[in-house]
Amino acid sequence: MTHKTLFEQISLKKSYLCVGLDTDIRKIPAHLLKEADPVFAFNKQIIDATLDFCVSYKPNIAFYEAMGAKGWESLQKTIEYIPKSHFTIADAKRGDIGNTSGLYARTFFDPTSSGLSFDSVTVAPYMGSDSVLPFLEFENKWVILLALTSNSGSADFQRITADDKPLFEHVLIKSQEWAGADRMMYVVGATQAKDLKYIRGIVPDHFLLVPGVGAQGGSLEEVSKYGMNKSCGLLINASRSIIYAGNGTDFAIKAGEEAQRMQQEMAVYLDKYCNQIERPF
Amino acid sequence: MTHKTLFEQISLKKSYLCVGLDTDIRKIPAHLLKEADPVFAFNKQIIDATLDFCVSYKPNIAFYEAMGAKGWESLQKTIEYIPKSHFTIADAKRGDIGNTSGLYARTFFDPTSSGLSFDSVTVAPYMGSDSVLPFLEFENKWVILLALTSNSGSADFQRITADDKPLFEHVLIKSQEWAGADRMMYVVGATQAKDLKYIRGIVPDHFLLVPGVGAQGGSLEEVSKYGMNKSCGLLINASRSIIYAGNGTDFAIKAGEEAQRMQQEMAVYLDKYCNQIERPF
Repeated sequence: MTHKTLFEQISLKKSYLCVGLDTDIRKIPAHLLKEADPVFAFNKQIIDATLDFCVSYKPNIAFYEAMGAKGWESLQKTIEYIPKSHFTIADAKRGDIGNTSGLYARTFFDPTSSGLSFDSVTVAPYMGSDSVLPFLEFENKWVILLALTSNSGSADFQRITADDKPLFEHVLIKSQEWAGADRMMYVVGATQAKDLKYIRGIVPDHFLLVPGVGAQGGSLEEVSKYGMNKSCGLLINASRSIIYAGNGTDFAIKAGEEAQRMQQEMAVYLDKYCNQIERPF
Repeated sequence: MTHKTLFEQISLKKSYLCVGLDTDIRKIPAHLLKEADPVFAFNKQIIDATLDFCVSYKPNIAFYEAMGAKGWESLQKTIEYIPKSHFTIADAKRGDIGNTSGLYARTFFDPTSSGLSFDSVTVAPYMGSDSVLPFLEFENKWVILLALTSNSGSADFQRITADDKPLFEHVLIKSQEWAGADRMMYVVGATQAKDLKYIRGIVPDHFLLVPGVGAQGGSLEEVSKYGMNKSCGLLINASRSIIYAGNGTDFAIKAGEEAQRMQQEMAVYLDKYCNQIERPF
């Protein structure tokens, strides 16, 4: 999917919501456990109920891998089921030496290899350029690089300061040599608005994938105010607050309601913060 | 496997060789492609031919994932086939927020979840403490944390200097708060002996997993001289130079010969550098 198409979808739906399909077999409603593939049965209903209110889906690969080969089958069925209008993110946080990253790229981008065809994959920056570049060899596919994550441990290394810049800023600057805003996005944790403002100054044009709104507690309005650019530039992820909004037979209805609630809030912020000429920073 | 048992195996076999099972279906001998599971058929023969000369096996997970669900089945069969005497490493370079790292830990350590039961997993440090700690909740299982990797891109961030210390040193120091030498190892690329000497000064007691010897060109004697401690403290990985030593029907014989050649060299270095009272640094 291109940058232009993604923004068109955002404008059309008045939503920049990404639904995190972090489907844990231990947490899904009991009545689904009798299905042949409970994880896919759950995802299918979640997708049906939320697709009008979101522009993206992001399965975190750990939830599928933890089930072994069976989990990969559920993942494959899920990705095939998501409409092409939606931007798909393999939240895998991979990264290895060049030829091995090339294999991870095939895993998530080349359906003739693994059966999977995502639009993008999250990548960890620690190993540097040659761990990231192989993902960019696939046309129209995106790298979403970890910059500043939303967990408490992010302070351990991401905020270490060298040459008056925290490590995450080095990552943002260096990686712009590898690809532009048409092929690369960044993961930016939503826990602090001041960080988002600072980061927007370094990468004005890139999309930011923002976890940490919803169950993790970030404010949707603050993130939108400080993170938005003139092409929206935000994909805001909510996982648990949507997919586990209910846990009975009506779980999908509850999930749809929560996705719609977020979409309606987003429609206001798109109007308020996206079309202005003067940016708030 | 405990630190003590691993050193006993090293002493018994006079080897600290780890065989990297980076099995690429595009590179294995043609006659195996008619097998029901060519990747497992290849691995089985490689294991049979090398097990007397090595103490560890390390499948890089990318090679299996790239084949989707089928690849996970090959991986599972491979891990079950490796004798319990050998230390197994899931070279996965994972790392995510706490609850998600917990799922990756289940993936590689809990056979009731994924079907896999490795002794250890490689973890990327970028996301900090809570991305690493969930792996340490599994008794007798190890984290092998990326410190200084062997690829060219390692210079992009790992050598960035803050407070007069490169990032990889911050990783080595901080992570010692999370676990000791009985539960944690470090990945240290073997391309430069001076780095190894420097790192050994920071982590005197830990095992180091050293890739980059063999096809990537590091010197086995230099690594042994500067990296060894009194419990050996080294696992030296060779992948392509062993598993692709031959490409005919005798590929396993060739692999065994190359593993034996390395083991014989290692026996000399164990005698020369491991038992001395005065360390060379």
